[in-house]
Parts: sequence; C-alpha cells; structure tokens
Amino acid sequence: MTVRSRPGGRTARTKEAALEAATALMAERKGEAITMAEVAERAGVAPTSLYRRWPDVRALIAEAAVGQLMREQPMPDTGSLRGDLCAWARAAAQQIASGESVLFQALAANAASAGAGRKASGAEPLQPRGRQIAAMLERARERAEAAPPVADVLDHVLAPLYMRALFGAPADADYAEKLVDRLLG
Amino acid sequence: MTVRSRPGGRTARTKEAALEAATALMAERKGEAITMAEVAERAGVAPTSLYRRWPDVRALIAEAAVGQLMREQPMPDTGSLRGDLCAWARAAAQQIASGESVLFQALAANAASAGAGRKASGAEPLQPRGRQIAAMLERARERAEAAPPVADVLDHVLAPLYMRALFGAPADADYAEKLVDRLLG
Repeated sequence: MTVRSRPGGRTARTKEAALEAATALMAERKGEAITMAEVAERAGVAPTSLYRRWPDVRALIAEAAVGQLMREQPMPDTGSLRGDLCAWARAAAQQIASGESVLFQALAANAASAGAGRKASGAEPLQPRGRQIAAMLERARERAEAAPPVADVLDHVLAPLYMRALFGAPADADYAEKLVDRLLG
Repeated sequence: MTVRSRPGGRTARTKEAALEAATALMAERKGEAITMAEVAERAGVAPTSLYRRWPDVRALIAEAAVGQLMREQPMPDTGSLRGDLCAWARAAAQQIASGESVLFQALAANAASAGAGRKASGAEPLQPRGRQIAAMLERARERAEAAPPVADVLDHVLAPLYMRALFGAPADADYAEKLVDRLLG
C-alpha cells in the first residue's frame, strides 16, 4: 500500500477537500463549533478517512485555520526584529479583539467541545506558522540582532493576547508593543 | 432609587440567583455555550435585569466561574514565592489540560459565541482572583523576596497554559514550572 504517500493521490485529494471544507464552514459559522461529520459531508468523503489523518475535529480545524492565516497574513519583514514583532503583534491584537481572527474563533469554539476528560491531542498545529516566525528570527540573527526562541514569541506575545480575548478584556496595539518590549528587553 | 446598592435587597438577590444559575448551567453543560435567556430562566428573573449588571453572557459566565474557582481553589501558601507559584501553576496546568477547568471551558465556549465584530466588554472578571494573587505576591515581598506584578503572573504563566489548551498541545507540570522559573528570572 503506497497510496497514503503518493503525491496527488486519493489521500492527498481527501486532505485537500477536508481542509477546503473546514475553511468554508469556519467562514460561514464564525464562532460555532463544527463536527467531523459536517466537514466530511461538505468534503464528500467518509468521516473515517478524516479520523485517519486528524485525531479530532479540533486538530483538523486548527490545520485549516493556520493554513488560511499563512496565506492571508505573511509575517512582516521591516528590517528590524522589534519592527517585525511589533507589526505582527499589533495586527494579531487587532484581529483577535475584533473577532476577525478565524484561528482564535475556531480554536475557542472547538476547544470547549473537545470536552472534559479528553487528553491533549499532542498535535502542533501552529508548527507551520512557527516555521515562518523562525525564519523571521533567523533574519534578525543574520543582522546580528539577539533573537529569542520561537516558543517564547508564542508563549509571551501571542498567548497574552489570546487570554485577554477569552476574558473579553481589552488588548490594543500599545499592549501588544509592551509585550514585545518585555520579550526583547 | 437606592435599590441597586442596598445590601440584601432585590438587586443583590438577583445577582446571587444569576451567579448560582450560571454556575449550575456550566456544570451541566461543560463546554457548551450558554445564553443570557437560559440563565435568566433558571434564575427566575427577567433577562433585562441581567443585562443591567453584565454587558453580555461572557461577562456573567466569567464572574460565576471565577467565583467558583476562588471557593474551590484557594491560592497556595507554601512559604516561598517560587513554591506558591509552582503549586498554583502545576494545578492550573493539570486542570486546564484535563478539561476540568470550569473557567477555561466556560470562557472558550462563550468567547466564540461572543462573536465577530463585538468590542471587548472592558470587564475584568479575573480581578477577584488577581487580588488573591496580589496577596500572595505581597506575602513574598514581606519575606523580602522580589515579586513581579500580578499582570505578569497572568500574562506569562496562565496565558501560555490557556493558549496550549486552545491548540490541544501538551502543557504539563514541568512546562508550568519552566514558565514560573522564566518569570522569576
């Protein structure tokens, strides 16, 4: 059986159809939980073929939302690390606070329905975005700037923005810049 | 009209009934969004009297969940700041990851339904917990330990645990301790 890894084969087409269906459903039903069955129906594939690739709907939704984020919002390249991080953090704060962040909305809606007692899936859906951030940090190091690890950027700039959004507390551009300054200084 | 501020008056009873109803609904419907109308019905009060106190259901849910958290999980008092922060962060990580955190579940379920385009409510539902944390930090200062501001504890220890839970990524006790060590420098 080599079907699973053949590029452009049936498995690749199923993956593509599932991610497209999830992206469309997220756009239509902003902030509402989505089920595997709904994605399968929209994609025209069997739910079992989705569970072969994703442990639960949260993992599928996260992969689709991160894919959309990367297509629509490339990381900035301003010539300095502080400039890059501030431009990114300000935009993220604005999007999350205004309810326009597909990623945050989808994660929140589906984190809750992933439900009590479930183990973390162990998936790392942010990894592709993490590689973009890593490239940004690498550019800074090539300019001889000191740059933190990717995990610190996510934990100490993105995470506080997410937490404030969960609590409905304000998180504006100034706050985003303060998080960047604290990280760098 | 002095009804709003009279202790034990009708307004106080409405508030109490609403918080009790919200707490009961959260326990029954873990991870599902709750509406103001449902809380009002359960509490036996008019929805309009809830909107007088809370701008949206998220603010009400957050106040109820923080109240429950404070009753059920007092902040630790181990004799050292690092000990206190580690005990708290380890317990928070375990609860959030296992889906037992009423606060996280309720916030996630209702953040999404708070919906696109809504402004942040400006509410600070974590404030009562913040005061408990502030007292813990004050005890440390009285022992002549250096202690960070409350906001840094929330942004740089609690927020990364929340973000990992949103992504279904693992966040265990070791990770929680690493966040504390980084905060304390």
